Amino acid sequence: MESTLGEFDLIWRYFKAGSESMAQTPNSPVLLGIGDDCALIAPDPTQSLAVTSDMLVEGRHFFAGANPEWLGHKALAVNLSDLAAMGAKPVGFTLALALPESNATWLEQFSHGLFRLAQAWQCPLIGGDTTQGPLTICITAIGSVPAGAAIQRSGAQVGDDIWVSGTLGDARLALGALRHEWPLDHVQLEAVVPRMHQPEPRIALGVALRGIASAALDVSDGLLGDLRHILTASQVSAEVDIDALPISKTLAQQTEAIRWQCAARGGDDYELCFTAPASKRGLLEGLSKPLLPLTRIGHITAGDKPTIALRDAQGVLLSPEQSAHLMQSFDHFKSNPA
Amino acid sequence: MESTLGEFDLIWRYFKAGSESMAQTPNSPVLLGIGDDCALIAPDPTQSLAVTSDMLVEGRHFFAGANPEWLGHKALAVNLSDLAAMGAKPVGFTLALALPESNATWLEQFSHGLFRLAQAWQCPLIGGDTTQGPLTICITAIGSVPAGAAIQRSGAQVGDDIWVSGTLGDARLALGALRHEWPLDHVQLEAVVPRMHQPEPRIALGVALRGIASAALDVSDGLLGDLRHILTASQVSAEVDIDALPISKTLAQQTEAIRWQCAARGGDDYELCFTAPASKRGLLEGLSKPLLPLTRIGHITAGDKPTIALRDAQGVLLSPEQSAHLMQSFDHFKSNPA
Repeated sequence: MESTLGEFDLIWRYFKAGSESMAQTPNSPVLLGIGDDCALIAPDPTQSLAVTSDMLVEGRHFFAGANPEWLGHKALAVNLSDLAAMGAKPVGFTLALALPESNATWLEQFSHGLFRLAQAWQCPLIGGDTTQGPLTICITAIGSVPAGAAIQRSGAQVGDDIWVSGTLGDARLALGALRHEWPLDHVQLEAVVPRMHQPEPRIALGVALRGIASAALDVSDGLLGDLRHILTASQVSAEVDIDALPISKTLAQQTEAIRWQCAARGGDDYELCFTAPASKRGLLEGLSKPLLPLTRIGHITAGDKPTIALRDAQGVLLSPEQSAHLMQSFDHFKSNPA
Repeated sequence: MESTLGEFDLIWRYFKAGSESMAQTPNSPVLLGIGDDCALIAPDPTQSLAVTSDMLVEGRHFFAGANPEWLGHKALAVNLSDLAAMGAKPVGFTLALALPESNATWLEQFSHGLFRLAQAWQCPLIGGDTTQGPLTICITAIGSVPAGAAIQRSGAQVGDDIWVSGTLGDARLALGALRHEWPLDHVQLEAVVPRMHQPEPRIALGVALRGIASAALDVSDGLLGDLRHILTASQVSAEVDIDALPISKTLAQQTEAIRWQCAARGGDDYELCFTAPASKRGLLEGLSKPLLPLTRIGHITAGDKPTIALRDAQGVLLSPEQSAHLMQSFDHFKSNPA
């Protein structure tokens, strides 16, 4: 189809202006941003580039009518979280946005959330496009990490500790309340809703984990499912202590079934889960104070067919089969899309 | 929303397998492809990286029910075309795909078209995701170009020739016939429909133009509109000889109004339009034979407010005002989206 110059080109100019209004980063590797056929990134012989793409679709990844400012934040945050999980620092991002119609208020709020996070991490918009269509946001983020220093999923070793940053489950707790799966009073809801809508990418932590973590990823689909990706890539197994999972005060007030569902199975927290040798415990406890709490939740065991053995609330280590049975017994909240 | 592991994860594994089945490229800068939080690209001190993103939406960029194989080809081709316009060689691409439902036949055909083009240019799929949603394809392509050698839009100089590759207008001629704007017999239609659905990115030409072209872009929105982007970025004006625009035999059989609409205004041909000093004519004529025909269509003139002056079919140079009037007089085919 040929393009009709018009409102959607004007929208693109709007994002271009937003990007240009960002403070320039000294020594940025971005040679050329928006305005040509491609953006250009300068060669740096010391750095590998990390690349990640995520697409958010209305009704699937966010509710129709979602707050546009939160959406702008979250669309970039989930990509920066992937960079963080590799130990990469943001370099820039592209945005492809389909919108049903041009809506100045929506655009202003969306770009406010988007550019505030971009500015915070000195990550300029370097390209992309806007078009008419069902509301869909596709961001590709590019980051840099010293050559050889990227933290991959495949590096976990038998005996390594398993760590998690921050707290788990608040995003799922908020989602469940909004879906009427369980009740929360308004104080509880206010405490957890920001975790669902405005996740903070753990970039500073990711960078700090270079040379310390043996494997890492961000928790977007639920801790146990995501941990399994590390186990599969590393060909190892794990023991996880259920009671060690770090949770917020709000989640601690809920029933055991809700705590389990949210902390072990809930997604969208965008904390980092990583492994590290026991010799790094002191270093990691030292990082906890300036950055954010880091919690040891288990350790890596041998086993080329990846399994997770749970230590239950009574401190009893269950077999992988008993663990799987326990997981299933708690999994009675259906995971429907929005 | 939390992700539901299921059919869309299976679809993603399908693309992962497709990517892994591609022949490995020796010396590829891709250190790590699909399967971790990010892909990793190795540093190369001699190369800048070029990055471009495009989103194709059903009903806007292609008709509902479009041939999936053509769609897979085109979604990647339009991005590789942007790389070509900078003189960059493909390194890899990410794919974010929203699909209303899992459809094995559609996926097989789509990925066939996608991976055939990817294989032809040794451009592996390195990341992305699949999700449920209205059919939307977002590709980000990454290419490499020797540091300092990227061909930007801003380099056109007064006196430079303006060149176009291949022929212009067949994609628009096909679209107009499918929209019943004008009739084509089936021989004519068969001759031009592939130009609309299966554009060939001019990568070999883009690479050959390094050090020769002063400015370049790909013709996606119509020659005159796209040329204006070069003029604006370079702060120059242009004279264009209407009768010099290279067109196919099929387009040459149409009325003057259709020829104009398609060759000068039609989009989606994905030929390269570029400028080069007159001293490079011999070199460029030499490139025409091994690659594809290159045609001089005008030259760059002074003028910081970018204007295009047309030389009409009688060889008379019109003023910019007369040229604008002539352009308007031909623009009576409305450019509706599909």
